[in-house]
Amino acid sequence: MKNRIVAISRQFGSGGHTIGLELAKKLDIPFYDQDIIEKIAVETGYAEEYISEKGEYLTNGGWLYNITTRSRFESNPQDRIWEVTEKVIRELAAKGPCVIVGRCADYILKDDHKLLTVYIHADDEKRSERVIRRSGSTKVPIEKRLRDKDKMRSSFYQFYTDRTWGNANNYTISLDSGALGIDKCVEIIASLY
Amino acid sequence: MKNRIVAISRQFGSGGHTIGLELAKKLDIPFYDQDIIEKIAVETGYAEEYISEKGEYLTNGGWLYNITTRSRFESNPQDRIWEVTEKVIRELAAKGPCVIVGRCADYILKDDHKLLTVYIHADDEKRSERVIRRSGSTKVPIEKRLRDKDKMRSSFYQFYTDRTWGNANNYTISLDSGALGIDKCVEIIASLY
Repeated sequence: MKNRIVAISRQFGSGGHTIGLELAKKLDIPFYDQDIIEKIAVETGYAEEYISEKGEYLTNGGWLYNITTRSRFESNPQDRIWEVTEKVIRELAAKGPCVIVGRCADYILKDDHKLLTVYIHADDEKRSERVIRRSGSTKVPIEKRLRDKDKMRSSFYQFYTDRTWGNANNYTISLDSGALGIDKCVEIIASLY
Repeated sequence: MKNRIVAISRQFGSGGHTIGLELAKKLDIPFYDQDIIEKIAVETGYAEEYISEKGEYLTNGGWLYNITTRSRFESNPQDRIWEVTEKVIRELAAKGPCVIVGRCADYILKDDHKLLTVYIHADDEKRSERVIRRSGSTKVPIEKRLRDKDKMRSSFYQFYTDRTWGNANNYTISLDSGALGIDKCVEIIASLY
């Protein structure tokens, strides 16, 4: 059976997680984010922190590993996490309508369900404010943190889906949460569901 | 004075023109599309058909001309149209709130006004239906017509703005008019104005 799923992709610090959470409350359907990581952890035996890092970000090591060993039969940890992510997301989506944030769910579920795909972004200033408010400053300048995360998410998405991350043509709707505000984004997406 | 301007970019056949027109009616503000071409025609002396072709589409000839003669002082016809387009769009925007479709208005006005930037897209099937309904079939297969127009608009935008056309991060909102329908798109954009 095809379920109505909202798959949200988001730039780091754009508030996409909060939008997904608020949207799920408003629509009264499950919200999956941390649950996905926990399920992948159980299945792969990897630590949750490791999965958070490797499950959406293409890291240099992973990428090198991929181009040097991809032709062999063994899979690297990042590939293994990807395989399990696909399985977990398909199982969750099969249960019923839900909101899923990140993890290329828009791509994984594209042929199986009635998808509403969303991309949330914001300018660097708004994202910097949000990230610092949420997790404080670090030694690494905030501009570099944003750039690094964007680059790794974008590379991860490109690598596993063969699509360009943030290409408006791939989403039902894309919203600038910095210009519009979190509440307005939730309201608009809910009105489309 | 900063005016509230809606600048709509759109894929060929996505209904962006109709959305702009309906939106302007709903908001009771001017809609500029053909007017821009007429003004450019008066200023440059080129025929309106020529401006329609050269004012949004980077054609092979124009592109070659650009890379071979750009270092000289003379400007080619496409560059001349671009210069006048910038001027005309700035003048129209300075008059008051309005809706402008295409012609890189999102880029031209980015520093001067309070912009709501919109990107409208749809899948090939919906766009094909729309184009054939509007202008009939031609000898050239519809898939090729869509691909050619997209490529030329995208190259034009990239060439004159140094931005990637259809990159969600550049727009306040991007909408799939095929999935959502024209009326819903108008309603959402109007609610953000």
